[in-house]
Amino acid sequence: MWNNQGYQNGQFNLYSYYVGYNPPTSVNPYPRFPSIHSQAFLSPFTYVVGDVTIQKNTYVGPFVSIRADEGTPFYIGSNSNLQDGVILHGLKDKYFEKNSKKYSIYIGNRVSCAHGALVHGPCRVEDAVFIGFKAIVYNAIIGEGSFISSGAVVTNGVELKPRSFVPPGANIDSQEKANVLGIVPETEEEFAIAVQRVNSEFPAAYSLYFGKNKCSCGLAC
Amino acid sequence: MWNNQGYQNGQFNLYSYYVGYNPPTSVNPYPRFPSIHSQAFLSPFTYVVGDVTIQKNTYVGPFVSIRADEGTPFYIGSNSNLQDGVILHGLKDKYFEKNSKKYSIYIGNRVSCAHGALVHGPCRVEDAVFIGFKAIVYNAIIGEGSFISSGAVVTNGVELKPRSFVPPGANIDSQEKANVLGIVPETEEEFAIAVQRVNSEFPAAYSLYFGKNKCSCGLAC
Amino acid sequence: MWNNQGYQNGQFNLYSYYVGYNPPTSVNPYPRFPSIHSQAFLSPFTYVVGDVTIQKNTYVGPFVSIRADEGTPFYIGSNSNLQDGVILHGLKDKYFEKNSKKYSIYIGNRVSCAHGALVHGPCRVEDAVFIGFKAIVYNAIIGEGSFISSGAVVTNGVELKPRSFVPPGANIDSQEKANVLGIVPETEEEFAIAVQRVNSEFPAAYSLYFGKNKCSCGLAC
Repeated sequence: MWNNQGYQNGQFNLYSYYVGYNPPTSVNPYPRFPSIHSQAFLSPFTYVVGDVTIQKNTYVGPFVSIRADEGTPFYIGSNSNLQDGVILHGLKDKYFEKNSKKYSIYIGNRVSCAHGALVHGPCRVEDAVFIGFKAIVYNAIIGEGSFISSGAVVTNGVELKPRSFVPPGANIDSQEKANVLGIVPETEEEFAIAVQRVNSEFPAAYSLYFGKNKCSCGLAC
Repeated sequence: MWNNQGYQNGQFNLYSYYVGYNPPTSVNPYPRFPSIHSQAFLSPFTYVVGDVTIQKNTYVGPFVSIRADEGTPFYIGSNSNLQDGVILHGLKDKYFEKNSKKYSIYIGNRVSCAHGALVHGPCRVEDAVFIGFKAIVYNAIIGEGSFISSGAVVTNGVELKPRSFVPPGANIDSQEKANVLGIVPETEEEFAIAVQRVNSEFPAAYSLYFGKNKCSCGLAC
Repeated sequence: MWNNQGYQNGQFNLYSYYVGYNPPTSVNPYPRFPSIHSQAFLSPFTYVVGDVTIQKNTYVGPFVSIRADEGTPFYIGSNSNLQDGVILHGLKDKYFEKNSKKYSIYIGNRVSCAHGALVHGPCRVEDAVFIGFKAIVYNAIIGEGSFISSGAVVTNGVELKPRSFVPPGANIDSQEKANVLGIVPETEEEFAIAVQRVNSEFPAAYSLYFGKNKCSCGLAC
């Protein structure tokens, strides 16, 4: 299969994404197709596989992988954004609960995952969290409104209180470290809100631009 | 729209990129199409959106996102390279000036952005700068010929003098830290020149290979 | 060539990858096409160029770049995995030997490269190594069964003894630092084995799912 037969000549300016079933494995035997709200937006070059729910008005940037082929299911709330190069994947058989349901990855509403962030299950990210450039969240619960700065790591089963502030490059790998985090400074809080707002315009704007999801009034809704 | 209808069967060996207008938003209401020199080179799986200028003989690697849909415009000079997975994006309403014009991201000539680097506007990167593996440049001015090592961060509005050397993993987040940086050692300077040279062969070589941009002599020029 | 002529309207759910020859340059004048085992698996949105060998049952995730257009050749053994966003590239004219042959990048069997790892030649990665999230291996020899934790860097020509353990975020840039690394703890060893096992199911499962490589019995082999 992987030879130069069937090679397509030419260069194409093309809007393509890949959305598909997870393949059956011993770990995850049931193929599921993602459930993506018609008013969410997938950029060109996004990859979404398996039991993934994406809610209304969430923006998924280019080169984002949402790969629920091992840990599963994934849930991503509304008005959230996964910026360029974000990766979501989960370990098998590891979960956190939300509303009495088990998730490999649960991401709430109005969550921003900035460029290059890695969110690896099991994890639960509550509403209005900001995850900075190239940060790693893995095996952690992130309380509502927390701010994880660029390049930081939150892991080892820690739980962050709501509005926790993780400084740039910090490595929060024990509950002791998590417990002594300060609360989000006002500047960062305002920044996170501004980022979320800008991104929340993208699903309608990009869809409108591409001629989809137009309201009868002619505008995106 | 996001369902399994219209799913394309089969696997395709395909050279595709995505170049398009930014969508109109409250932040950035005017759709602009990128202006890419015919002798620049876009690899398969590149994404370029909005008011972006890319000059002659610049190489853009696979999985590079140049997304001028918020901060804008972006300028990338000639004989530069954006290697695999590099991300360019900018904050709204933040600029640095160059030649009396405001840019979200200005990148000069002969600049190398190595694998996985993130260049986030506002920033101005002068000629012959080297930005290392997975480094972050965000809200900064980088003087000509500077060398930013792997995993380093330069941010918070700092300005680096020409030929500044940022060591691996350093976090330059204040002007005080920027002011005491040493100058680029000779080994790193030679390395940066060698990397730029190798990459500057790619636009013509890849284009030639793909049968485009041939000179009347039959060679790439 | 890079204008809005030829723009393809519509959004496509499409399984495409790019596999091609390296272009001839002064550094690397001979175009070679990758040699990929029919039972390896390339995900959608993978990029493989040049003199690259990928052996049986190796999984290549989305947004992985294996770009042998400068340093070359690359070899990747069987039952290995390159997860989402992994980048392989090599410097020109730099090699390590394996079995009396020179490689820019040699990766053995049962090696895991986790999400966002960068493996940059020259390097040799022996069997059963685990390379963690966003780690960097560049100009290094990694002994069999070693475990490189998330965000760590191994570089500057160091050689790691078999079963070396590199802690999270460590910067192993001298042989002195390499020499005093401990051996892999049992927990990490078990984790690495589990990750490799899960991933080794993917090539057959994904191929089966896509209706390729079926045995006469109807199952993937």
